[in-house]
Amino acid sequence: MITLDLIKTLSIKNDKKIVFIVIDGLGGAVHPSYGTTELEVAKHPNLDSLAKESLCGLAIPVDYGITPGSGPGHLALFGYDPVKYLIGRGILEVLGLGMELQQNDLAFRGNFATINKDEIITDRRAGRIPTEETVRLIEKIQKNIKKIDDVEVILKAGKEHRFAGIFRHNKLVENITENDPHKEGNKPHKIEPTVNSEEAIFTAQVVNKFILEVKELLKDEPKANYVLLRGFAKYPNIPKMQEVYKLTPVAIAVYPMYKGIAKVVGMEVIDGCETIEDEIKKLEELFSKLYDFYYVHIKDTDKLGEDGNFEGKVKKIEEIDKLIPRVLNLQPDVLVITGDHSTPAVTKGHSWHPVPVLLWSKTIPACIKNNVQKFTEEEFSRGMLGQVYMTKIILLSMAYALKLDKYGA
Amino acid sequence: MITLDLIKTLSIKNDKKIVFIVIDGLGGAVHPSYGTTELEVAKHPNLDSLAKESLCGLAIPVDYGITPGSGPGHLALFGYDPVKYLIGRGILEVLGLGMELQQNDLAFRGNFATINKDEIITDRRAGRIPTEETVRLIEKIQKNIKKIDDVEVILKAGKEHRFAGIFRHNKLVENITENDPHKEGNKPHKIEPTVNSEEAIFTAQVVNKFILEVKELLKDEPKANYVLLRGFAKYPNIPKMQEVYKLTPVAIAVYPMYKGIAKVVGMEVIDGCETIEDEIKKLEELFSKLYDFYYVHIKDTDKLGEDGNFEGKVKKIEEIDKLIPRVLNLQPDVLVITGDHSTPAVTKGHSWHPVPVLLWSKTIPACIKNNVQKFTEEEFSRGMLGQVYMTKIILLSMAYALKLDKYGA
Repeated sequence: MITLDLIKTLSIKNDKKIVFIVIDGLGGAVHPSYGTTELEVAKHPNLDSLAKESLCGLAIPVDYGITPGSGPGHLALFGYDPVKYLIGRGILEVLGLGMELQQNDLAFRGNFATINKDEIITDRRAGRIPTEETVRLIEKIQKNIKKIDDVEVILKAGKEHRFAGIFRHNKLVENITENDPHKEGNKPHKIEPTVNSEEAIFTAQVVNKFILEVKELLKDEPKANYVLLRGFAKYPNIPKMQEVYKLTPVAIAVYPMYKGIAKVVGMEVIDGCETIEDEIKKLEELFSKLYDFYYVHIKDTDKLGEDGNFEGKVKKIEEIDKLIPRVLNLQPDVLVITGDHSTPAVTKGHSWHPVPVLLWSKTIPACIKNNVQKFTEEEFSRGMLGQVYMTKIILLSMAYALKLDKYGA
Repeated sequence: MITLDLIKTLSIKNDKKIVFIVIDGLGGAVHPSYGTTELEVAKHPNLDSLAKESLCGLAIPVDYGITPGSGPGHLALFGYDPVKYLIGRGILEVLGLGMELQQNDLAFRGNFATINKDEIITDRRAGRIPTEETVRLIEKIQKNIKKIDDVEVILKAGKEHRFAGIFRHNKLVENITENDPHKEGNKPHKIEPTVNSEEAIFTAQVVNKFILEVKELLKDEPKANYVLLRGFAKYPNIPKMQEVYKLTPVAIAVYPMYKGIAKVVGMEVIDGCETIEDEIKKLEELFSKLYDFYYVHIKDTDKLGEDGNFEGKVKKIEEIDKLIPRVLNLQPDVLVITGDHSTPAVTKGHSWHPVPVLLWSKTIPACIKNNVQKFTEEEFSRGMLGQVYMTKIILLSMAYALKLDKYGA
């Protein structure tokens, strides 16, 4: 099986342009109330006619039956084995809030909780205090705690009782436990090192001291008088797309988490988009620039799937379909349309279902005669590409863009 | 995933005969000028009717999007992971010229070049001197240079300005650079060790000294007064087919390179064939002998694809089709018809496209009711075998020939 190291030796820089339109949670599943999937009901004439002359199939993000998070789904899209490479939860949270990460930072996610005078957690979410309240509390903590010894502390409020944070110091490691007892009625755990190293012991001490100082500071708060910290993670060591594929990649996304993932793999990230329409306009603007890999992330389909909103997801797909001709007008050399995972309305969340994937190519037609007539899960299962691991898609896009040299004599 | 070591424990010797007809560069792609592939246009009634009762699919030689050289393609056909096992370019060239290789030999490919008095390469191919001229020059060098210190030197002329060679000594290693500057107007590079080992330094010294002696010897030649050496490689350590599969394999091929690859994996190699017709006749002759694996290599389809000759490749496929009944008349127990990779006329070279593969079986029919009606890429994508890594084909052929024992109790 091919490795990133081998791809490095085969990848070629040329001026051909690859576009990845990533429709988050694109794939659906049969919804019992409708007897069909979102893609089967939705009217998407542009996607259908593109499918007829594209290489079509179903992509498996991680493995059969495995439901991917956004991190693994996107890593697979960009050709990184999502089992080998993992972006830690703390990192995703910090990136998701748009915080700037440095190489040695230890990131984490936190939430406010309620603890009683016997040191027992009575509410793990501090009564789901409103976001404004969390903003106030984070400001209060940040004003009083800038450092623990010589470790810098950087915090940012999230939604409701949630926040994220960074401990900044070059001696910190991920190898510590969490303090969340996961059940109310228990005392919080002490943070412990999970390996017997000086660095792990140091990291655990710093975090315990931080929690203690926060507890002291919040002791008069009626609800949010304690913090639970989880998902300690350092910046992942993932080879950059420039290095592996010799691409000059750019990311167009609305939400910070996807911008963050793109940054991790080396993409230049474009800010300022608020809607899908903004994103397509930005793609048009940037198309004359020297990028050769355009990643466009469309979020709304995933959100509607997570809400269990079948009809909303159908409408959103129809909206997106109307924008496809504008992408085609740019005449990309290779166009891939897929998702990072499926989010069927019936599962109300990410699912393990393979994701429809379409690859259209200008120089060497990927397909002309094709048994696929419509952009649906069922039709795509009969596409020439068949079922394919998602990590392979970028390789195919590179091949059709003539960016991969012959392997061996 | 299965390993060669495991296959060794499962393989069984019996008298059933497997035939692999390997049509080099068989797979095609949609050619924009014709709107179709070579196989879709070609008339091949014999292949079509065989496909209807065969297990059909598309084989991926190395990985999705990866274009294989002949070495990796053939290793995959014979069940060897082409990323793990690689046959170096020098070895392929030496084998291609029918030279005998020993375990510790360092093989290379060379060509005559023209250098001016300022030591600048003015023609990397010495004006493409005719083969006879290369034969004369190689004789001249070989007569004068039999050894460099105690390293034996063995050379053989190839076509036009090309030759191949062997340095024979047990201290030689592959870890050296090449002297070809790859562009005219440059001085040749000095051969340098790429690792800091005694062996690499020794090898580089030997090769530099050889080049210097050849230069002195050829100094009065009008065109071919210098040599460029590339692709230094040692004999690959690949387990033999006898050992892994308990087969007694035989190779019928016209071109030395394919005979060479067959030798590397342990096949007995048959000489004396010049045409496809010769090869089929040879297969018929040898069918009563005690071999149980027949590899027949057909080259012409690849050459026509490399020339971008769509119609020539179509005609060649039609010619090959006419010979299929003679193969069937031999009543092999298992017949596989495929290629080592695709060579579409549109890419004018090897490509990443998966290769149609057909497996027909006598004892246990591989397929009777079949949705495949024709021997084409698109129809085969809907075959029962689907898309499959090429390394798996030999396992299936062994299974249908009842040459693989049950794994586990």
